[in-house]
Amino acid sequence: MRILILGGDGYLGWPTAMRLSALGHEVTVVDNFLRRLACLEQGLEPLIPPPPLHRRIARWRESSGQEIALRPGDATDYAFLLGVFRETRPEAVIHYAEQPSAPYSMLGHREAHLTLVNNLASTLNVAYAVRETDPACHLIKLGTMGEYGTPNIDIEEGFIELEHKGRKDRLLFPRQAGSLYHTTKIQDTDLLYFYVRMWGLRVTDLMQGPVYGLLTPEMGHDAELFPFFNYDELFGTVLNRFVVQAVAGIPLTVYGKGGQTRGYLNLVDTIECVRLALERPAEAGELRIFNQFTETFTVNELAERVQQAGRSLGLSVEVQNVANPRVEKEEHYYNPMHRGLLELGLQPHLLTHDTLRGMLEQTLRFQDNIRRDAILPRTQWK
Amino acid sequence: MRILILGGDGYLGWPTAMRLSALGHEVTVVDNFLRRLACLEQGLEPLIPPPPLHRRIARWRESSGQEIALRPGDATDYAFLLGVFRETRPEAVIHYAEQPSAPYSMLGHREAHLTLVNNLASTLNVAYAVRETDPACHLIKLGTMGEYGTPNIDIEEGFIELEHKGRKDRLLFPRQAGSLYHTTKIQDTDLLYFYVRMWGLRVTDLMQGPVYGLLTPEMGHDAELFPFFNYDELFGTVLNRFVVQAVAGIPLTVYGKGGQTRGYLNLVDTIECVRLALERPAEAGELRIFNQFTETFTVNELAERVQQAGRSLGLSVEVQNVANPRVEKEEHYYNPMHRGLLELGLQPHLLTHDTLRGMLEQTLRFQDNIRRDAILPRTQWK
Repeated sequence: MRILILGGDGYLGWPTAMRLSALGHEVTVVDNFLRRLACLEQGLEPLIPPPPLHRRIARWRESSGQEIALRPGDATDYAFLLGVFRETRPEAVIHYAEQPSAPYSMLGHREAHLTLVNNLASTLNVAYAVRETDPACHLIKLGTMGEYGTPNIDIEEGFIELEHKGRKDRLLFPRQAGSLYHTTKIQDTDLLYFYVRMWGLRVTDLMQGPVYGLLTPEMGHDAELFPFFNYDELFGTVLNRFVVQAVAGIPLTVYGKGGQTRGYLNLVDTIECVRLALERPAEAGELRIFNQFTETFTVNELAERVQQAGRSLGLSVEVQNVANPRVEKEEHYYNPMHRGLLELGLQPHLLTHDTLRGMLEQTLRFQDNIRRDAILPRTQWK
Repeated sequence: MRILILGGDGYLGWPTAMRLSALGHEVTVVDNFLRRLACLEQGLEPLIPPPPLHRRIARWRESSGQEIALRPGDATDYAFLLGVFRETRPEAVIHYAEQPSAPYSMLGHREAHLTLVNNLASTLNVAYAVRETDPACHLIKLGTMGEYGTPNIDIEEGFIELEHKGRKDRLLFPRQAGSLYHTTKIQDTDLLYFYVRMWGLRVTDLMQGPVYGLLTPEMGHDAELFPFFNYDELFGTVLNRFVVQAVAGIPLTVYGKGGQTRGYLNLVDTIECVRLALERPAEAGELRIFNQFTETFTVNELAERVQQAGRSLGLSVEVQNVANPRVEKEEHYYNPMHRGLLELGLQPHLLTHDTLRGMLEQTLRFQDNIRRDAILPRTQWK
């Protein structure tokens, strides 16, 4: 299959590109290196410095014999994006080209504006480019479980059957996000839902929980193929950050009471979900929404598991509750459905003791790279 | 009260500015003349050519003795907008600075991109400027009943008490719009709802139905003070368009079967709703949503009423069903609530025979201005 990956340099994009390339697909990646630029601006460094994308692609060619095509550029530049669509004629496009950090989106007006315009203009452009070149092209966009927030009712997969005053309808699940970034994801879902209904596009929206993990099978032991792994307060997801804190001997920083519950999944499962969605595309005129996570944890539970795994490796791991920089419920009901991807055949890789030990061992190899000053929360929501 | 009106040159903005000025408020208007530019680009002319805004303001000074301040500029330019906030220190801001046409937003990628970025960046900027200068400033934003679409259940005012699988919550009413423009209004509501919850802003979101009407009391008979009245397929709301068609002897063009039902209101009531909201502001941390219309009609009912009123004036008025250029239900359930503004004291001006005769008579004065080729639908949704 001809597949276009937007945001192919990122934490998810690069492992996805390798996986789909390994499966024999013709993969083209687009990236404007926004994450690398944001890290330069904020003085942040990923745990394992990734080589330039050209070199990663060359390395992948050497190790696998497979070719990944690269078109550097910005998905918010419609002329550029349309040119790439016309040239590569994708049968599927995977849209990762969004600014994905909640704290980054709360830094100030400049970062909020960048997040809003980048995430929505890129999504608009993808919808138009698909319609212009091949409306049958399957568009897979990453959403987030954060779109739903933490309502006091069960969270369905995208849509809810409502009964209200004796009448019924099936409508998008009402959403209320906890950051500007997450709000832009509510908005990009609405944008695609609209064009799906107008133009009959095929869209899969993957409402993903926080991802953890460092390795996928395609990387082997070659650090030059490792993903863009952030552990800092802006771009590090919570479990990745805890693992690095455990290795660095910094107490695990639980924001507030730590009862915040979310659905998590392993990096390997993220990519597997994308593959499953690719192989069983949405119908024409369908916005298909999957809740993409494998198990739920409170932040306290995550901290406890990392502590146990760390201690089994002889690390001294402490847990510290710090003032919550975010505006969020610290104790709440949380019961999201997640049947769709299991029905497509997902075999979850759960967060076992061995998984955590493996992450800690990998991180220990790079412990000299850890920048201790980038971990503690500085970005305030208020 | 010190009041800032964004989009003060428009169909609603200018009459609002005069009304609030007449009531003794200190009014400053901002406009980037986007509507005038779009009309130039599309070759459209309003029924009564409005003088430049500087001249309208001078005319208003002569007729009323009141001063309206003008700051020409773009609300999507944050440095500019923040400067205006710092200079004028508004106690309330009325945000009309959005691209408001559904068909315009469906013309193509360029117009969709303009609508999306204009409407969301301006809203983001207003939220930030309020927070930066005076978080107690009351922000009134125009929403649209079109955010809700036409669900098969009763439409509440903004929020819905949900009972789902035995649990309850109060959430934003699920929304699904019928144009890209209307989708950006779902998105700007979500944007403000987020910042209301984070920063405790005071926001009133007025979910308005299509507005009709030409005159408000402040205009008297002075055509130089008349509003920016479009009747073309892009910027003309349906009833205004029908009135012009009746005068021009063009059959009233009903899109499709004509069973499409919407909530309508008179221009005079729009401004009255804004005044009522101003005088009873939202609480800190409240997104207050009102459904802003006074009565519902099908398009067929509107056409029939215009036909009757036109015939009473001796006009020959025919009705013609044309192929629907839009993607929408032509027969559907529609039962939206609208209690909030009545409770604040709104006294509706309903669509009576005399009201329609008055609109027709005013339009007859300017019948030589009617551009017949701008009325028939050309913009296709598909």
